[in-house]
Amino acid sequence: MNSGQFTLSSTRYMELIDITPQVEKALSKANIKEGICYLFNPHTTAALTINEGADPTVRTDIIKAIKKIIPFDLNYQHLEGNSPSHVLSSFIGCSEIIFIKNTRPQLGTWQKIYFCEFDGPRTRKVHWRVTS
Amino acid sequence: MNSGQFTLSSTRYMELIDITPQVEKALSKANIKEGICYLFNPHTTAALTINEGADPTVRTDIIKAIKKIIPFDLNYQHLEGNSPSHVLSSFIGCSEIIFIKNTRPQLGTWQKIYFCEFDGPRTRKVHWRVTS
Amino acid sequence: MNSGQFTLSSTRYMELIDITPQVEKALSKANIKEGICYLFNPHTTAALTINEGADPTVRTDIIKAIKKIIPFDLNYQHLEGNSPSHVLSSFIGCSEIIFIKNTRPQLGTWQKIYFCEFDGPRTRKVHWRVTS
Repeated sequence: MNSGQFTLSSTRYMELIDITPQVEKALSKANIKEGICYLFNPHTTAALTINEGADPTVRTDIIKAIKKIIPFDLNYQHLEGNSPSHVLSSFIGCSEIIFIKNTRPQLGTWQKIYFCEFDGPRTRKVHWRVTS
Repeated sequence: MNSGQFTLSSTRYMELIDITPQVEKALSKANIKEGICYLFNPHTTAALTINEGADPTVRTDIIKAIKKIIPFDLNYQHLEGNSPSHVLSSFIGCSEIIFIKNTRPQLGTWQKIYFCEFDGPRTRKVHWRVTS
Repeated sequence: MNSGQFTLSSTRYMELIDITPQVEKALSKANIKEGICYLFNPHTTAALTINEGADPTVRTDIIKAIKKIIPFDLNYQHLEGNSPSHVLSSFIGCSEIIFIKNTRPQLGTWQKIYFCEFDGPRTRKVHWRVTS
């Protein structure tokens, strides 16, 4: 299998969820020794990113900074009221590429892969695809 | 054909232009059933993004937020006067990857692919490439 | 050889370093005429971007704007004190894709590839991989 998807649930309005274990599982299924893994978030109020995994305060600091950077009170026209979440989705981006080495993600020492929830809590999906 | 480009024209200073039809046409030409489509913006005051396509106010809200986030009055040194446009290009990013399923882009329910004009109006190009 | 890495040294706290020559050298080694080059930054306080290379003030203007956009004084919890650098890494992104044409990067007229140092000076690495 060279493509698939996994599901996850967020529990807060905005949070970074470590999906490295799910990506490792996908790579294990794909069983490709060397290549590229592509991750794609099909939602418009969420994103994917790679950042530090050692200290959990980095994740909460990122959310704290994001809430400061994005204007929440701006006479937005979109009636659903979640325009800041859409803005963040475009700023952080909806895909990631990861190199595969020995059937595992070739990340830096401190890196983990995160699903960025910007309009939770919700059930979300991540699509993956690998090529050798 | 597994690569090509298409041209588009922006009509405003900053706007998001739906290029999903052009990408669908490229994938139709490429005629690859399953794979990856790579999009690349060769301009330094523009970008590519994926976001909601159902409600057009999401696009105008994103532009509104962007204009609030990026400082316009900052004693910039670049004499062309379009430094905010360059900054936005790096924040949003100049490429996108999209999965191909049944010769079509495998997007989420609400997603459309957008060219982000940050220094228009101008004539712009998008490069595409597909792999199976 | 279809993958590898190169090392670079930053000399400032935050700066954009042109790595186009290193990428060109990698493509020359890989000796693939047409395809995709993937670049990956394995650090959590750095990023990769593509932007203007003709006027060096664009690079310094980007850094100037970034320092204005990201909050530095926000009661961050991460004890290392470099949370703004982590935030920037997620905003700009840790990978780039570049099309290969005639064994060279197919960039726009004004584009150069940059390593973004957000917590220097440090010694840094960039991973590359190419596919045809």
